[in-house]
Amino acid sequence: MTGRLWGIGVGPGDPELLTVKAHRLIEQAGTVAWFAARGRPSNARAAAARHIRPRQPELPLYYPVTTELPAGAEYEELLAGFYDEAAERIATVLDGGEDVAVLCEGDPFFYGSYMYLHNRLAGRYESEVVPGVTSLLAGAAVLGVPLVCRNETLSVLSGVLSRDELERHLVDVEAAVVMKLGRNLAKVRASVAAAGLLDRAWYVELATLPAQRVLPLAEADSSGAPYFSMVIIPSAEASTR
Amino acid sequence: MTGRLWGIGVGPGDPELLTVKAHRLIEQAGTVAWFAARGRPSNARAAAARHIRPRQPELPLYYPVTTELPAGAEYEELLAGFYDEAAERIATVLDGGEDVAVLCEGDPFFYGSYMYLHNRLAGRYESEVVPGVTSLLAGAAVLGVPLVCRNETLSVLSGVLSRDELERHLVDVEAAVVMKLGRNLAKVRASVAAAGLLDRAWYVELATLPAQRVLPLAEADSSGAPYFSMVIIPSAEASTR
Repeated sequence: MTGRLWGIGVGPGDPELLTVKAHRLIEQAGTVAWFAARGRPSNARAAAARHIRPRQPELPLYYPVTTELPAGAEYEELLAGFYDEAAERIATVLDGGEDVAVLCEGDPFFYGSYMYLHNRLAGRYESEVVPGVTSLLAGAAVLGVPLVCRNETLSVLSGVLSRDELERHLVDVEAAVVMKLGRNLAKVRASVAAAGLLDRAWYVELATLPAQRVLPLAEADSSGAPYFSMVIIPSAEASTR
Repeated sequence: MTGRLWGIGVGPGDPELLTVKAHRLIEQAGTVAWFAARGRPSNARAAAARHIRPRQPELPLYYPVTTELPAGAEYEELLAGFYDEAAERIATVLDGGEDVAVLCEGDPFFYGSYMYLHNRLAGRYESEVVPGVTSLLAGAAVLGVPLVCRNETLSVLSGVLSRDELERHLVDVEAAVVMKLGRNLAKVRASVAAAGLLDRAWYVELATLPAQRVLPLAEADSSGAPYFSMVIIPSAEASTR
């Protein structure tokens, strides 16, 4: 019998925002795997740390590059090779009959790296994904502002898009979230302003973690932001009904 | 001392998809409130039932109408009056010094009725929202298909929109979810087909519950669907990387 592969959403950061199911499967897993930048702690592991048993085997998967390198064929190839290798390391554990829980910030299928392992392994092994609380909903919760209501449209965008692309999407939405800010903050703010939304846009950093920061986008420092920060433009209607 | 108001996301249905924090606050609350259609069980209460203490006081909030009545001024007024009254019933409990946990399917600020209580009460009482797992991510998880990756755009739409509005949004997305299907299923399918997306669109009903159903949208019975069903169009790119 080979082991089972579990992609586990651990939520936005607050260890209490893991689900009961995530908690159970992490404790049950033969091996707990997680992604991290080399030399940096894993955010996913930090969120789940209290649920990992003492001496439970762990499998760290260190990215060969940071997430903010410019895209290009070389970068693509490097990442594909990394995911191939990570998948094979996990396959070795699964072949030995151990279940593997892969910890994922937020939700595994919502911009999560777990999907690259899933694509490589789910056809070969029994697999299951445990959905998690995404950072965008954690952001709305810490703002204390409803995100979207009734028959409104929500757009989720990446801050890596060009200024024009961002603006084109933003002019036609009722509520929006721009993820992956990082060094794209100044560009994103310009797009939000051009779309006429700056007065109701919020900047949210590390939602639900002790270092959390929340401020109007107009007041956010344009010199940069962590990769795990976002802009939230809540529904105008939702807060007035 | 007045009590605190907690808006608690209980996730998509599977009782194991509550967060640890939701679990803790529900157990701690003086009163547990929930919405339901009159004469029907509350989905939110069902998801949280195992965390409600024996003899813990509960405050049912029964909608005066079903959610699928045609919109109109009379309907709007009826609902606003209902939320006013529900908020005052909760305020009475809070004034008595009891904390109130309002249970919400999915996430409270993501199309959730809790927001109407929040808008009426958060200025008067200490309040906190506990984000939850939304049905759209539960849907992607049970499909076993990544929803969105890298720098893709995700659109979340309501099935109540007109066929033209739906199609206009759908032609410009990489991944999309159409919520609130109900009797809009045939119209939504026509829009998805017109946007050229029918071959990768899925129909998902009651994700994570025992009665869950998942099938290609092209094969879904066009005569209707429950309100809590959705169409998921996962990223084409995410499943090939």
